[in-house]
Amino acid sequence: MGVVASAPAKIILFGEHFVVYGEPAIVTAINKRAHVTAELRTDKRIYINSPNLKASGYFSQKNRFQAEQGGQEARIKLEPIRIAVQQILNLYKEENGVNVNVQSKIPVAAGLGSSAAVAAATATAVSRLLGIEISREDVFRIAYEAERFVHGTPSGIDPTISTYGGVLLFHKDRGPTPINVKEDIPLVVGDTGIERSTGEIVSGVRQRRERYPSIVNPIIKAGGKVALHAAKALEAGDLTTLGELMNINHAMLSAIGVSNEFLDRLVYSARKAGALGAKLTGAGGGGCMVALSPPDKLKQVVNAIEREGGTAFVARKTNEGVKIEG
Amino acid sequence: MGVVASAPAKIILFGEHFVVYGEPAIVTAINKRAHVTAELRTDKRIYINSPNLKASGYFSQKNRFQAEQGGQEARIKLEPIRIAVQQILNLYKEENGVNVNVQSKIPVAAGLGSSAAVAAATATAVSRLLGIEISREDVFRIAYEAERFVHGTPSGIDPTISTYGGVLLFHKDRGPTPINVKEDIPLVVGDTGIERSTGEIVSGVRQRRERYPSIVNPIIKAGGKVALHAAKALEAGDLTTLGELMNINHAMLSAIGVSNEFLDRLVYSARKAGALGAKLTGAGGGGCMVALSPPDKLKQVVNAIEREGGTAFVARKTNEGVKIEG
Repeated sequence: MGVVASAPAKIILFGEHFVVYGEPAIVTAINKRAHVTAELRTDKRIYINSPNLKASGYFSQKNRFQAEQGGQEARIKLEPIRIAVQQILNLYKEENGVNVNVQSKIPVAAGLGSSAAVAAATATAVSRLLGIEISREDVFRIAYEAERFVHGTPSGIDPTISTYGGVLLFHKDRGPTPINVKEDIPLVVGDTGIERSTGEIVSGVRQRRERYPSIVNPIIKAGGKVALHAAKALEAGDLTTLGELMNINHAMLSAIGVSNEFLDRLVYSARKAGALGAKLTGAGGGGCMVALSPPDKLKQVVNAIEREGGTAFVARKTNEGVKIEG
Repeated sequence: MGVVASAPAKIILFGEHFVVYGEPAIVTAINKRAHVTAELRTDKRIYINSPNLKASGYFSQKNRFQAEQGGQEARIKLEPIRIAVQQILNLYKEENGVNVNVQSKIPVAAGLGSSAAVAAATATAVSRLLGIEISREDVFRIAYEAERFVHGTPSGIDPTISTYGGVLLFHKDRGPTPINVKEDIPLVVGDTGIERSTGEIVSGVRQRRERYPSIVNPIIKAGGKVALHAAKALEAGDLTTLGELMNINHAMLSAIGVSNEFLDRLVYSARKAGALGAKLTGAGGGGCMVALSPPDKLKQVVNAIEREGGTAFVARKTNEGVKIEG
């Protein structure tokens, strides 16, 4: 009998990239979740099946990999999930084998925190399967370790939000502070469908900053102020100000070189369809944009983004972090 | 017998808007000129004919206006030219009547300094017609007075560049400093054809700054640094860096809210056609954009902008300020 856990995707509302340099960012968990089913095996292998990654296969106790789907590339794709499982096993000195089945509707490599959500859900499902109560702090830590395999030195935003849910003001050194958001935040996410390497984009920003410190550093600092203004607007339920700040934030991300024409077209199409503001979200260079829409314009904004060639869906903030299902 | 004088249009390469708040801007005179022919009249009226404004008519000594073309609106359009003529007459206590014929190829209300070029050429032609040597300082001052009628409190960039030509680092308080540019700067100007009110756009920026000082002030300051970097790149003939700085500057102008979709589309089309960088120029909200193009890509950049719905022309810097023709 399996145990199912789920964890939410995230949208960075403000401050991506600037957060790398110590400025605050705002991130919200959204109602698009990764579900993970964990089952005991009779042998000691770890079997992972992730249809959204088009990858499945077996890891032996000695960490040999045998692909079922996706060939040897599957190993790389499944490795963060294996890391999450293995850490749970290590933590409790268990030697069980487990099956892990991922059902995720979160677009992959799109800046929505898919891999962290899967890792958090995996750690939670597997620990419950083994009859262990795991703390949220441990889930976070394990998802963070899994993220390190994907991103090298991740900011920690993705595992934090997947674990805790809600809306957070995130600070690299000080960590997360919950923002008290009473109102609904009706969002539309538009996916360019272009996968990009976060690492390369982050390193491009670093190069621009090294080349023009007197230009880029003040923009980064001002990016932090955008996030602080936005936190107040979120608490006040002031969607008009939030939208304006999203537009400003988008242009500042363009200034550090991470937007592109497709993202800008989706952003404009959303604004023209009635969005209060729109910006790229995540690393940029592809991936997703997000629009803040009046509730009665959500459909128009979705349609406008799709007419422009993106894939769009409505997303709402959720306070539910990682959890056991059913 | 008439006297012909001409003065150049300008392109702001860097720092529009930021210059209002005391940051440096870079402006270049371009090889698109306003020509003005001045002739003596036998009566004391001032007749002005400006086909590019679709306006002509007579100003009496008592400043009554009689339209020939363009109705009573023509009065407003022709007033800056009348001011230029009248100041010359006042300066030398002349009571002659004059005919002023404008032939200008500079797009109007597009941020290219058309009115200042016409005013500078008018002052120069009329004073020569009256047999007077006028200093460049006086031409500047008169063109500035004419500009005040158009813009209220102009920065002084337009009359400066129309008078002196060349490439200038312009500072609101310190005035202009010539930049020593040895290389050609191959530019393509793309006109959206959308006329906009500079005053309204400037006031929109002021409002955004008042609302978000901690965001907008650092962007303004960083805008000044972009111009200083660009001045060095211009002196070094480093077109690649110039292009990159133009792209950054464009995004910073978006952040203060003065770009729009049409301008962005022209900017992207120019970059895709091989431009090293592109940005809006002038007030924004319409008007023109400018692209820096490798010499062998000028035609492609022009075509790309026109395919996107703009009107494009190649522009090169000129060192020739206002001058008597022939």
